[in-house]
Amino acid sequence: MKTCYGGIDLGGSYIKAGLLQKDGKKLSKFEIPSGGGVSPVAVKKNLKIAANGLLEIAKQKKLKLAGLGIGSPGTVKYPEGIVTDSTPNIPGWIGTNISKVFTGIKMPIIADNDANCMALGEAIFGAAKGTNSGFYITIGTGIGGAVIQDNKLIRGSTFASGEFGHMVLKADGRKCKAGHRGCVESYTAVPALIAAAKKYSKEYKKTRLKKEQITTFDIFDAFEKNDRAAKKAVEENAYLLGTAIGSIVNLLNPEIVIIGGGLSLSSDKYINLIKKSVFDYAYKAATKNLKIKKAKFGNDAGWIGAACLNVGKL
Amino acid sequence: MKTCYGGIDLGGSYIKAGLLQKDGKKLSKFEIPSGGGVSPVAVKKNLKIAANGLLEIAKQKKLKLAGLGIGSPGTVKYPEGIVTDSTPNIPGWIGTNISKVFTGIKMPIIADNDANCMALGEAIFGAAKGTNSGFYITIGTGIGGAVIQDNKLIRGSTFASGEFGHMVLKADGRKCKAGHRGCVESYTAVPALIAAAKKYSKEYKKTRLKKEQITTFDIFDAFEKNDRAAKKAVEENAYLLGTAIGSIVNLLNPEIVIIGGGLSLSSDKYINLIKKSVFDYAYKAATKNLKIKKAKFGNDAGWIGAACLNVGKL
Repeated sequence: MKTCYGGIDLGGSYIKAGLLQKDGKKLSKFEIPSGGGVSPVAVKKNLKIAANGLLEIAKQKKLKLAGLGIGSPGTVKYPEGIVTDSTPNIPGWIGTNISKVFTGIKMPIIADNDANCMALGEAIFGAAKGTNSGFYITIGTGIGGAVIQDNKLIRGSTFASGEFGHMVLKADGRKCKAGHRGCVESYTAVPALIAAAKKYSKEYKKTRLKKEQITTFDIFDAFEKNDRAAKKAVEENAYLLGTAIGSIVNLLNPEIVIIGGGLSLSSDKYINLIKKSVFDYAYKAATKNLKIKKAKFGNDAGWIGAACLNVGKL
Repeated sequence: MKTCYGGIDLGGSYIKAGLLQKDGKKLSKFEIPSGGGVSPVAVKKNLKIAANGLLEIAKQKKLKLAGLGIGSPGTVKYPEGIVTDSTPNIPGWIGTNISKVFTGIKMPIIADNDANCMALGEAIFGAAKGTNSGFYITIGTGIGGAVIQDNKLIRGSTFASGEFGHMVLKADGRKCKAGHRGCVESYTAVPALIAAAKKYSKEYKKTRLKKEQITTFDIFDAFEKNDRAAKKAVEENAYLLGTAIGSIVNLLNPEIVIIGGGLSLSSDKYINLIKKSVFDYAYKAATKNLKIKKAKFGNDAGWIGAACLNVGKL
């Protein structure tokens, strides 16, 4: 009977879940609504449905499910699994002991912050495999991060580390949703990219971006076709992100930087622009052996990373 | 016979050296010119003079000198002690194997980057004693930093970590000496403080800062006397430094931040302004147990930290 690990990625809208083989191979995955906008009770019910789904699939496939890992938004006390802070997409989630949601399921159950899980997955089986220190970022509606040092996540003294999106990029600059000024997220996350594309679409007569609603798909599609407004928006975004990542490289001098999240899947040219900006900004002493790679697991990063919470304990 | 440790702090102008008791008590210290502006050969000669001085004092005081630690500017490969990069104040220093300078001295000899040493000293015997994770900054002509995680220094994959002064504060902002744009050092180190004080001294009729040459002593003296130009310059400096430190707190969520270097000794009111800015900028989840303290060892931080390179191995 082969051993596998279950991973559950809890989001504000969806739960993604899957089974991972001991060597990191994906065996099975599915997606259900999370009920994040409904109530914490609904979220707990859906987490149990996801867990039972994984148990059922394991049974059918004659696999031994050796542990269950859960990635959750917000600050998660590790290894206890208690949500202690900031989960805007799941109102009322604070105070939940995630590990205790799964009564009746007898196996190691462990929960952690979602970005931490993603970094862990990339470190164990993904783009950072074989490295000792890394910085993982996720670019999407928000900007997240996680730091790995000596093959261990830096979870922080109160489990609140990794807020790369809320590091300063332009002191006294734009106000972000959290009320801070000039942070990385305000200038580089999806809303900022869309706002920049709209702004530049007004500067150029010929652009594919002359419409009311612009999506990131529109922007990267136009970018690949050399649209000037799209190019300007994407280049500016990559330059600013690279500057912020270069800052971290100057501070921590990691072996590898992993770029994940929705935007990372948009275009390899975009990843290369970010890379260039990191190498331009950071010190040569800190970049001489630096590797910068796109995350391996794309949209599966969350549940694969969560599954790794138990793999990592081996 | 009591055991002690020797520490040597190499600077561009001076070498500071001293003996440290096993429990962190200062036993003896002295200062000699380093010859940093003369030649690497002169520096090596002076380092040997310092080491022999420590041996002689130990002999006179009937102490057993159990090890010699050296803190050097630049990137230092640890534990080999080879200088691999960036030492603008000691031209020609790159390539030196510091551990091999002390031929004939039979005891453990170990070298590291100077800011790393200072952080180590504060972690073992100073303001960060008893904590597990900390961020150390030094504010002076330049801005340096060091990160301690799980009671170990993060030296970086190529020993180039800790460049807090060259993290971004205002993207696309002022150019620094290293050719980067908008970094922390350009806005907060001593030259920036003096430039700000000069600028604001022109805005106010009544100010103590109406003179050609302003020193940091003048600025902090006037600041303590509520001079408006000095207040504005110091408050702005503390606000910007606190924003940059708050960024790190959001990323690493350390237990403690230690503020050292020349400027940290200027005024406790200044330290308190920095503290306020850190707590304003950083997330509550990351600051709820955060301690911010002034470094304990002031101008002795360098040699005490260097001595700790051997203590830390116990």
